[in-house]
Amino acid sequence: MRIGIIGGSGYTGVELLRLLCVRNDVEVVFISSRAHAGKAVTEQFPSLRGHIDLTFSDPDKIGETPCDLVFFATPNGTAMHQALALLDKGVKVIDLSADFRIKDVAVWEQWYAQEHASVALIEKAVYGLPELFRDQIREAELVANPGCYPTAVQLGFLPLLEAGIVDSQSLIADVKSGISGAGRGASVPTLMAEASDSFKAYGVAGHRHLPEIEQGLALMSASPVSLTFTPHLLPIIRGIHATLYARLTAEVDLQAMFEKRFKDEPFVDVLPEGSHPETRSVKGTNMCRIAVHRPQNRQTAVILVVEDNLVKGAAGQAIQNMNLMLGLAETTGLQQPALMP
Amino acid sequence: MRIGIIGGSGYTGVELLRLLCVRNDVEVVFISSRAHAGKAVTEQFPSLRGHIDLTFSDPDKIGETPCDLVFFATPNGTAMHQALALLDKGVKVIDLSADFRIKDVAVWEQWYAQEHASVALIEKAVYGLPELFRDQIREAELVANPGCYPTAVQLGFLPLLEAGIVDSQSLIADVKSGISGAGRGASVPTLMAEASDSFKAYGVAGHRHLPEIEQGLALMSASPVSLTFTPHLLPIIRGIHATLYARLTAEVDLQAMFEKRFKDEPFVDVLPEGSHPETRSVKGTNMCRIAVHRPQNRQTAVILVVEDNLVKGAAGQAIQNMNLMLGLAETTGLQQPALMP
Amino acid sequence: MRIGIIGGSGYTGVELLRLLCVRNDVEVVFISSRAHAGKAVTEQFPSLRGHIDLTFSDPDKIGETPCDLVFFATPNGTAMHQALALLDKGVKVIDLSADFRIKDVAVWEQWYAQEHASVALIEKAVYGLPELFRDQIREAELVANPGCYPTAVQLGFLPLLEAGIVDSQSLIADVKSGISGAGRGASVPTLMAEASDSFKAYGVAGHRHLPEIEQGLALMSASPVSLTFTPHLLPIIRGIHATLYARLTAEVDLQAMFEKRFKDEPFVDVLPEGSHPETRSVKGTNMCRIAVHRPQNRQTAVILVVEDNLVKGAAGQAIQNMNLMLGLAETTGLQQPALMP
Amino acid sequence: MRIGIIGGSGYTGVELLRLLCVRNDVEVVFISSRAHAGKAVTEQFPSLRGHIDLTFSDPDKIGETPCDLVFFATPNGTAMHQALALLDKGVKVIDLSADFRIKDVAVWEQWYAQEHASVALIEKAVYGLPELFRDQIREAELVANPGCYPTAVQLGFLPLLEAGIVDSQSLIADVKSGISGAGRGASVPTLMAEASDSFKAYGVAGHRHLPEIEQGLALMSASPVSLTFTPHLLPIIRGIHATLYARLTAEVDLQAMFEKRFKDEPFVDVLPEGSHPETRSVKGTNMCRIAVHRPQNRQTAVILVVEDNLVKGAAGQAIQNMNLMLGLAETTGLQQPALMP
Repeated sequence: MRIGIIGGSGYTGVELLRLLCVRNDVEVVFISSRAHAGKAVTEQFPSLRGHIDLTFSDPDKIGETPCDLVFFATPNGTAMHQALALLDKGVKVIDLSADFRIKDVAVWEQWYAQEHASVALIEKAVYGLPELFRDQIREAELVANPGCYPTAVQLGFLPLLEAGIVDSQSLIADVKSGISGAGRGASVPTLMAEASDSFKAYGVAGHRHLPEIEQGLALMSASPVSLTFTPHLLPIIRGIHATLYARLTAEVDLQAMFEKRFKDEPFVDVLPEGSHPETRSVKGTNMCRIAVHRPQNRQTAVILVVEDNLVKGAAGQAIQNMNLMLGLAETTGLQQPALMP
Repeated sequence: MRIGIIGGSGYTGVELLRLLCVRNDVEVVFISSRAHAGKAVTEQFPSLRGHIDLTFSDPDKIGETPCDLVFFATPNGTAMHQALALLDKGVKVIDLSADFRIKDVAVWEQWYAQEHASVALIEKAVYGLPELFRDQIREAELVANPGCYPTAVQLGFLPLLEAGIVDSQSLIADVKSGISGAGRGASVPTLMAEASDSFKAYGVAGHRHLPEIEQGLALMSASPVSLTFTPHLLPIIRGIHATLYARLTAEVDLQAMFEKRFKDEPFVDVLPEGSHPETRSVKGTNMCRIAVHRPQNRQTAVILVVEDNLVKGAAGQAIQNMNLMLGLAETTGLQQPALMP
Repeated sequence: MRIGIIGGSGYTGVELLRLLCVRNDVEVVFISSRAHAGKAVTEQFPSLRGHIDLTFSDPDKIGETPCDLVFFATPNGTAMHQALALLDKGVKVIDLSADFRIKDVAVWEQWYAQEHASVALIEKAVYGLPELFRDQIREAELVANPGCYPTAVQLGFLPLLEAGIVDSQSLIADVKSGISGAGRGASVPTLMAEASDSFKAYGVAGHRHLPEIEQGLALMSASPVSLTFTPHLLPIIRGIHATLYARLTAEVDLQAMFEKRFKDEPFVDVLPEGSHPETRSVKGTNMCRIAVHRPQNRQTAVILVVEDNLVKGAAGQAIQNMNLMLGLAETTGLQQPALMP
Repeated sequence: MRIGIIGGSGYTGVELLRLLCVRNDVEVVFISSRAHAGKAVTEQFPSLRGHIDLTFSDPDKIGETPCDLVFFATPNGTAMHQALALLDKGVKVIDLSADFRIKDVAVWEQWYAQEHASVALIEKAVYGLPELFRDQIREAELVANPGCYPTAVQLGFLPLLEAGIVDSQSLIADVKSGISGAGRGASVPTLMAEASDSFKAYGVAGHRHLPEIEQGLALMSASPVSLTFTPHLLPIIRGIHATLYARLTAEVDLQAMFEKRFKDEPFVDVLPEGSHPETRSVKGTNMCRIAVHRPQNRQTAVILVVEDNLVKGAAGQAIQNMNLMLGLAETTGLQQPALMP
């Protein structure tokens, strides 16, 4: 299988390379970077020396390289201009950006502050959360890969909302993300001298992942959903930790419910009762680990979720989707244990 | 004024030294460490070379050194055995541990898993949160210095609960603390190879600061209080960030209310609307910075609070209390700006 | 092939597990930890959940479990007591500790401050640096796996000393190690609050790796060797960076010499001229990357070497040796690219 | 005394503010930032809220604000255009950039790749290392404040070269700097996701501080000097650690020599024999701590030097110079102990 990557100089692009370059069943044949076109990939990323022999191409050259599947690891607003041409040639597409995640065009345009360039494709796109849409993904031509925060938050609330045992109107997600989630662009706030040895919330008034998460939660819930979503910037490189709060409206064995819901999921691990998952326990892997708490046996459930924002929150989940779309075993290439310590 | 410190080899002890050693109006004349007795303080703490010329003493020698005021920077369960003898001699006492914080002895004994050795002093002790008990602190002989988490959480909820404009039964405090909060004892989970570049919650089932915080919140609130409190371990050295959630039950101008409540407080800084305080903005200082949000104009208020856990959360607040107890200007020795970057 | 690991609760032990658990050609059948005997490995190391189903055993039980090869990932002074019994049963042994690294017993006993318990085995042991002793390792029954610092320093000086083009009596190795090199034992100096956001040298007066390195360098050099070795503690988890200085005594093309010397080595990568290798470029991998400089075209060569102290500096090199000893392809299981970022 | 700061939005500028804003004897009356002109300083730096009430001005407005002394905390190549006008008005000037540090114009122009705009002032400028040029600084109108690396390296080699007891032609300085040394400009290599949890050398072929250091060392030495200088990037915010190597040519008591040379220096602290200074022991302070070693009693002296690159390596030393130039006590405002932990 021949794979292309548009947008190969950011963290999700190089993470796709890291995960794909050791495989024999697929081959990355194209990778683009407008800034580095013509240069060896290993010049930018010496960690890949000996693993890959590609040169960055101009993204416009994708049409000249036959591919079975193309990933967009581009900023928001790029894939919506280029996806159609590829789909028309029979190339499958996975977009890691936000272009096709939100079904309501008006909502998308409000939060992303631009006109959508490919409205017809929005409906066609399948939301790439395999735990919810595995069958549709297998048949999809275009997959909208979920955001990093939305993956963690949706997986954590999923059993509670499907079961209808919480007040879906007062959900709270207090979520902390490692700094690679901010991307590889030069900026003052993400300098090491600014962001390390410190911690802050950001985007409390409104973050683009809020509508994406609420759209997903609404699909799981019989009753209307309202979420308070507070993202924070963690001084770690990789990892998201979501601390989720929901008011219980019924008495159930939460631990058993979570274990049952995810028992066949290869990339969701429900920890034993009383656990506190660490982000490092999934560093570099596609695993999402969840712990379920009900402090003081009061009415608030506290769900702890960790994932690697660049893997299950981005490139790993995209490859999980690729495996499904190409008819390969879903877990192929995604089974290395975490780097610890 | 002559000052003694019992327990001088931990982080709160050495922080007291750092803040006191540059002052002319008070002098540290005694500092104890059972393990290092007889050794120069600067051997353990070379950062104090040139600033202090003390030798660690055995804690039992405190009786031989006349002091006006003694700090206990000891583990829980120590001050309750030694405070009475000092008070009887007319020495004022500030306990940085938890021994005198909780008024209900049974609750204290349950959470701290030991019998209380000095029940009579509990009532006598004044809770050292100046923003609430300034006048009593001025007159106090024994001050129970608040915990690091309780300081941040109580200050953040204070205006909301005093005004009675939130549902006091569904309060949530999602709090993140730097690793110095875990103390200076050797332990595997706080090794750098374990705790850095990672993040986790802990004590979700129940943390000792929960009853202390609920006791404080109850005093502010006309209606009963219930709090979900989730502590997390941040990979930073100093700093606490509390993200507080409360359901609004009335329409008020939150920003104006917070600004008014704290306008005369020297160590509480309400940031402009839309702000996101960073822990580093208070690193090394006694300042607590607060930002007030109401995301999407929905019904949940989100209050962001930062403090340095070793200063406003421990040694700095203790010195603020000392200043009050000794009739000095409250802010003396606590006005250095934060170290940034 | 059946593999045993003595000492499975430290960082080198769990790193062996991480690298071996995904392989089909070898199986870890025994892992010991006196402290955790009887408990599941994944309780200590949740990152291995789903990858391994072993329980820690008492180390004394190794005799009851048939193995083809046993790793000692134990503190110094343990393997020398247990290796002989295994060897006598035909089990191959790789010792990751220092017990069999130094050929001169008196030197070993001086630096390790104990009597050597198995002098006869010292001569039998092959020093496990494949770039120097590949053929002997293939035939070895007992391999002394090199220390982390010695691997980096020896590989960096190797071409210079073999060629005899530097003053071998004034060598300098200024080496910086990540904190995992200090092990997983609880201690104050390696706490995150002590070691992060700081940097220091240690052991400047004399470090145990000095005699090991000088022994190795002497074997490469026709003239006597003297090394100044300064280890430093880096506030990173994994990684060693050696900065090596040598006075040139002849004019040669250093870059070409290094490239030629290592061109067939699977785990030594000589970077293009002018490069500065980053420790992260080898994070989690068995690769050693080297850059060669001659600043200002003066007489001092500056060689930069990076490795992951837990992989090429410990567990990875041990597995490279295992592959050789068991007749497997040398690079098996060691070909994942580094985790970046 | 009225103080101006040109270039107030970088790390040295804000560090000047942090150190000056608590003083009563001097007042910062002007601070410039072209990008933030018209905005409150505390908007950029909330850590200074409550400490300073200034607004950033356009740098060209400095002429309109009477000042006794002006600091240039600007990029290289700025002060040389603006200093003369200020000096002509009788304003004293301290330049924290490199414009006036190197006496040989040709050398400066080669390393800084531009024509020097104010050659006449170079000779007039006094090099602001008080340990060498205290008397000249007292009389100076223009001080060239030393670079961060040059301060540490020169202070460490000073007693050895003055005494003429080392081979001055084979000096080596292996120096590691915290990332704030790279400044506050947005750039990919200094992003936290790139620079944290990693380590590398840089500029090995030639760094601009090499000629500055060699110029200084030559002044101390009776014989010609040649230095190999290797800078490295440390994943810490503040701090420089210099590890210096020199071949001894005479037998002396190094410890005694260093203690004697610096015994009257307020900001150089020679540690007891066998010490290993940590960068954190000087975090936020103007202190330089030095330890002296002679490993294995061989012929190489190893000198360990730590300083805070933003204080003794920049703003603190500049204020030390300011105190001297204004006839104030040299240590005024520079006596806070380090932030620890």
